[in-house]
Amino acid sequence: MKIRVINPNTTAGMTEKIGEAAARVAAPGSLIVASNPRSGPVSIESHFDEAISAVGVIEEVRAGELEHTDAYILACFGDPGLLAAREITRAPVIGIAEAAFHLATLISTRFSIVTTLGRTGIIAEHLLQSYGFAHHCRRVRAAEIPVLDLEDNGALALDRIIDECLRAKAEDNIGAIVLGCGGMADLTAQISEAVGLPIVEGVTAAVKLAESLVALGLGTSKHGDLDFPRPKAFSGRFEFLSHGQ
Amino acid sequence: MKIRVINPNTTAGMTEKIGEAAARVAAPGSLIVASNPRSGPVSIESHFDEAISAVGVIEEVRAGELEHTDAYILACFGDPGLLAAREITRAPVIGIAEAAFHLATLISTRFSIVTTLGRTGIIAEHLLQSYGFAHHCRRVRAAEIPVLDLEDNGALALDRIIDECLRAKAEDNIGAIVLGCGGMADLTAQISEAVGLPIVEGVTAAVKLAESLVALGLGTSKHGDLDFPRPKAFSGRFEFLSHGQ
Amino acid sequence: MKIRVINPNTTAGMTEKIGEAAARVAAPGSLIVASNPRSGPVSIESHFDEAISAVGVIEEVRAGELEHTDAYILACFGDPGLLAAREITRAPVIGIAEAAFHLATLISTRFSIVTTLGRTGIIAEHLLQSYGFAHHCRRVRAAEIPVLDLEDNGALALDRIIDECLRAKAEDNIGAIVLGCGGMADLTAQISEAVGLPIVEGVTAAVKLAESLVALGLGTSKHGDLDFPRPKAFSGRFEFLSHGQ
Amino acid sequence: MKIRVINPNTTAGMTEKIGEAAARVAAPGSLIVASNPRSGPVSIESHFDEAISAVGVIEEVRAGELEHTDAYILACFGDPGLLAAREITRAPVIGIAEAAFHLATLISTRFSIVTTLGRTGIIAEHLLQSYGFAHHCRRVRAAEIPVLDLEDNGALALDRIIDECLRAKAEDNIGAIVLGCGGMADLTAQISEAVGLPIVEGVTAAVKLAESLVALGLGTSKHGDLDFPRPKAFSGRFEFLSHGQ
Amino acid sequence: MKIRVINPNTTAGMTEKIGEAAARVAAPGSLIVASNPRSGPVSIESHFDEAISAVGVIEEVRAGELEHTDAYILACFGDPGLLAAREITRAPVIGIAEAAFHLATLISTRFSIVTTLGRTGIIAEHLLQSYGFAHHCRRVRAAEIPVLDLEDNGALALDRIIDECLRAKAEDNIGAIVLGCGGMADLTAQISEAVGLPIVEGVTAAVKLAESLVALGLGTSKHGDLDFPRPKAFSGRFEFLSHGQ
Amino acid sequence: MKIRVINPNTTAGMTEKIGEAAARVAAPGSLIVASNPRSGPVSIESHFDEAISAVGVIEEVRAGELEHTDAYILACFGDPGLLAAREITRAPVIGIAEAAFHLATLISTRFSIVTTLGRTGIIAEHLLQSYGFAHHCRRVRAAEIPVLDLEDNGALALDRIIDECLRAKAEDNIGAIVLGCGGMADLTAQISEAVGLPIVEGVTAAVKLAESLVALGLGTSKHGDLDFPRPKAFSGRFEFLSHGQ
Repeated sequence: MKIRVINPNTTAGMTEKIGEAAARVAAPGSLIVASNPRSGPVSIESHFDEAISAVGVIEEVRAGELEHTDAYILACFGDPGLLAAREITRAPVIGIAEAAFHLATLISTRFSIVTTLGRTGIIAEHLLQSYGFAHHCRRVRAAEIPVLDLEDNGALALDRIIDECLRAKAEDNIGAIVLGCGGMADLTAQISEAVGLPIVEGVTAAVKLAESLVALGLGTSKHGDLDFPRPKAFSGRFEFLSHGQ
Repeated sequence: MKIRVINPNTTAGMTEKIGEAAARVAAPGSLIVASNPRSGPVSIESHFDEAISAVGVIEEVRAGELEHTDAYILACFGDPGLLAAREITRAPVIGIAEAAFHLATLISTRFSIVTTLGRTGIIAEHLLQSYGFAHHCRRVRAAEIPVLDLEDNGALALDRIIDECLRAKAEDNIGAIVLGCGGMADLTAQISEAVGLPIVEGVTAAVKLAESLVALGLGTSKHGDLDFPRPKAFSGRFEFLSHGQ
Repeated sequence: MKIRVINPNTTAGMTEKIGEAAARVAAPGSLIVASNPRSGPVSIESHFDEAISAVGVIEEVRAGELEHTDAYILACFGDPGLLAAREITRAPVIGIAEAAFHLATLISTRFSIVTTLGRTGIIAEHLLQSYGFAHHCRRVRAAEIPVLDLEDNGALALDRIIDECLRAKAEDNIGAIVLGCGGMADLTAQISEAVGLPIVEGVTAAVKLAESLVALGLGTSKHGDLDFPRPKAFSGRFEFLSHGQ
Repeated sequence: MKIRVINPNTTAGMTEKIGEAAARVAAPGSLIVASNPRSGPVSIESHFDEAISAVGVIEEVRAGELEHTDAYILACFGDPGLLAAREITRAPVIGIAEAAFHLATLISTRFSIVTTLGRTGIIAEHLLQSYGFAHHCRRVRAAEIPVLDLEDNGALALDRIIDECLRAKAEDNIGAIVLGCGGMADLTAQISEAVGLPIVEGVTAAVKLAESLVALGLGTSKHGDLDFPRPKAFSGRFEFLSHGQ
Repeated sequence: MKIRVINPNTTAGMTEKIGEAAARVAAPGSLIVASNPRSGPVSIESHFDEAISAVGVIEEVRAGELEHTDAYILACFGDPGLLAAREITRAPVIGIAEAAFHLATLISTRFSIVTTLGRTGIIAEHLLQSYGFAHHCRRVRAAEIPVLDLEDNGALALDRIIDECLRAKAEDNIGAIVLGCGGMADLTAQISEAVGLPIVEGVTAAVKLAESLVALGLGTSKHGDLDFPRPKAFSGRFEFLSHGQ
Repeated sequence: MKIRVINPNTTAGMTEKIGEAAARVAAPGSLIVASNPRSGPVSIESHFDEAISAVGVIEEVRAGELEHTDAYILACFGDPGLLAAREITRAPVIGIAEAAFHLATLISTRFSIVTTLGRTGIIAEHLLQSYGFAHHCRRVRAAEIPVLDLEDNGALALDRIIDECLRAKAEDNIGAIVLGCGGMADLTAQISEAVGLPIVEGVTAAVKLAESLVALGLGTSKHGDLDFPRPKAFSGRFEFLSHGQ
């Protein structure tokens, strides 16, 4: 089983880290292919960054289709381009935010989210509402660290995330914490140990959900509104998408 | 990894069938232990049957705890006793209704449910609302077959389920169908082929979710409201539960 | 009119207290029969306790059916076994949580709940959501007293409940408080006087709702999903339930 | 106990009928005082009629306050002026729509409403949403009869209501029907017999809820947003309301 | 285009102020006619005041209909009588609460409300829920100033409003503030400058929405439930409304 | 006032048509600049098309910023890239779906949507839920015409839209219809005349809302989560976005 873990930003170090985290939990027969788009932002911290990165997600899914990919994972907590990606493949496509939410509800009655920057909290709020998990989440919290600090300033970032998780544990009346950034995938064990609460991380959660769907023979439904897009002309820098190429 | 698949009713034939369906999708290292309570109803088709069967579920989880069980599955579509079961183990406990709902939302934007008897529809409606999936489900449908007809009258039951699924496909503007009874676990492939739509079945879905959680080291949170019950005295036929025995 | 007030736990002292509280508000023609199951937990403070106590509730309703009971009250704030109980009788069955919620909305726009242990708050939250009262309730609070402290340590328990109620009054922007445990039924007057806010207590509320329904000739609907369960075989310790016996 | 049943329209025949229906279900010690405003519409079939009738409701509550009234009932299905009425008395005030909704949820899992004119359906929809009962109601139906036809053309009106109730029973997957007009209060028994389903009627429901609250010593909360209005000057035709007169 | 801005209370000074605020933002071709009822309360601070003021609103719309009015604005934050007013005209009718909510969602993802007295907060909460904006509003706050202090004690009132807005800015994680009283219409610029956040004020918002609808040829739908009320008899002080006069 | 109406697809004929429709309702001082991206799909009929078109939207807003644009309109019914666009400007940005929903709720209590292809219905459903209008919309309908048929096959397309609108009028219990595609902007008058119901069209609605916000001095909040994106590096085909260029 080949699972393509797409880091929607272009920071190769983060892609590598995410790929390693995914590989650590993958089943024996699962081959993790971690990739990131050549085009896009170095980190995703706004709706603007998300909108741009969705194109990269699409390109990476298209690339994956040429390689007989069995499942896709979108490793950014805003799940950018999720429904678009689903439309262009029969394989399952899993966002790491949804993956974390699903699993968190299986082991706790209520959870909180600890994300990077406060301004991205609204993205999590919108996803919670759209997916149906709003009432399972007590609070969206931010450690107020830029995403790339997870790469460049790891020790400090880890401290701040743990501090915020401990505040969530003390104040939020929760059973679990969801980590709100793909770049935290390698920190799960450390955070979990320091906080003493189940920590649900999206990349690893998504790997298992992807394996689950493939094992069950379940792919993205091609009946109805996730069917392949109608072929049509694209112009300019998107001409390469014309007619379902 | 040992997964105990608990059929909350006492019909051994159904337990066997459910166990086989679970085993067919289990990962190589997963050992499926299918069991049912010695005490309880032969089928579950009402809130009354559910309430009684929850005791059996609890007993089976307690039995499982003596055998170092890694995860539990409750193989009745009403998820009877789910939160109670979670309280008495550190292992994950997955209901087949929630399992099916979770996976269905990953491969379609909207689904319908096809269950056995119309009177159990309200159980599904309550679960959809509580879990947060109400707006993902277009319609709860019933094939109007008693649960045990799945055992005793299989061919006819299958026909009626397929007919109802085809109506759902034609009328409900959906991308997937959730099967609303653990007793349909062995029919998934046939239904799927006949209907031409992704069919999400809860027993098999739950096996993969259980394996996923175990692989990630995630068990039921013991912080907060799913912690072990406070030990206390039980009397009469439940004396064996006293003081957390 | 005979109203059976079922204390779902087995603590006879609490049953007596609840029965007295019920009798104090009962109409002249109403006969209050307070009972508790012979089998079950001494107190209900978890989903686990609730699941077990639901069997006792069912047995007590069955016992009541032999005595021409006109209405049933389930005197535990989690309303355990409520829908199951409704299925096995034509009489109305009222849970004390729902009763308190209904009446609280008639005299205030928003209320808070003060319950015993924090871990049971989730039970109240789930009921509020399922019944439709989530937006009427500002906050679920706990006095952090075990249920049996209401029996054994009454003065201290009362103090802590009053303290929590006063905090609710000061902080929650509410018009009324709902007491979140059947064991508080005898404290309503004292709490009300100390707090200076309408205090809605479920046992007494349920008595009046039960009388109301009986007076109107309204019983549990036997059309549709609350109809009597289909008769069937039960095995083991539940064999006595076989075939609708 | 004195209960003032306020018919918000000015049709004396309907007031009388409503008063009789209320008296038939009142407890021995309850004195039903049926009244209607001198000023207002002969029937209430629109938001416009409702807005005007709210003034009459207020006047009738003010009149009741001079007569030591213990509880008020607003006998129009839109519950016009309900919160305003609550502000000017310590007594409980019950609307017949809310009363019917509350009791219907105690005896069924889902109900439908059968009202008079289709155009008033939106009023019921808004109340269902505001009160929290939207998900308990399957459908709002109209017999398409003007309110006063219930007075002037009773036999035909009854036929049409029964027909619509039978359609609801056949099509809506419900356990009970709520009658959507105070003017149907005298028809409950006939409709119930013809339809074979529990029929919840608001006037009679409200009488019992009012008696319930009074018996429990629960009145409208004067803490917070239902407190008496701040005294102030009113001018013109409302000068008589000045300074809390 | 003639826009009638109806101040639902009878304080002429406030009417004038509201009219001026409306005129300042009106388009060149728009004629603002500010009026208030002759009958009604001097300020609106409760459901009671609202219910009475709705009659004045209706009278003012009726007066407007004689003068070929193109649109109506109800300049009280509870939108009193809104649906009733819509029924009696083909022109659009805009409440200032809804107007402010609509525009606030176009420039921010989340907003808070700062109103006058805490007791009116529930009115805003009900409107948010009914209109669908509940999840866009973080918090309803009150400066705890009586409405007429905005007239008589302007400087102090302004200070308290600004203070509360600054608290909202600091604590509520919002992008904009909605002012919760028509009497604040002249303070928008000062508040905006002092707070440094977009301040959405309802009177001015409603003027632009009214102009928008008129320019698009969109008036209140007369198809369905906002159609003109059925003509009928009114008695007493409302006789003048008889038969659609 | 300069309003840039961005057609997110690349079909120049549709851009022109949309621009003309916008100009017809624009205020005298408003300059409508209709544009479309050079890169992107010729029509938008899927999540995939939407994701790609969001880039074009962003480019067009960036272009508009160089020309001192006062407000932006996104003329595709899925509001693609809406929040991203808001982040990169102080000017207001209005999507035509939200614009139509807002205005439809001001003139009716319930509306239906008539869109092009059934598969895009889910996009409307998601927007209704996210914006808060789900309970105002009775039904999302499709005329089942590809978007470009509005250009190439206008007469037939118009017929099918009118037919679907008439079905909505007859069956949906609504007061207004929202047209679900920017490409219908020029058909509003014809549809309105043929259907006899208020028809709310998003492009024209958005023009008036944009003018409204500008007149009130309200732009996208730069406090909090719609603030300008943090400058950062973009690579590949998006390098031109680096560092907030």
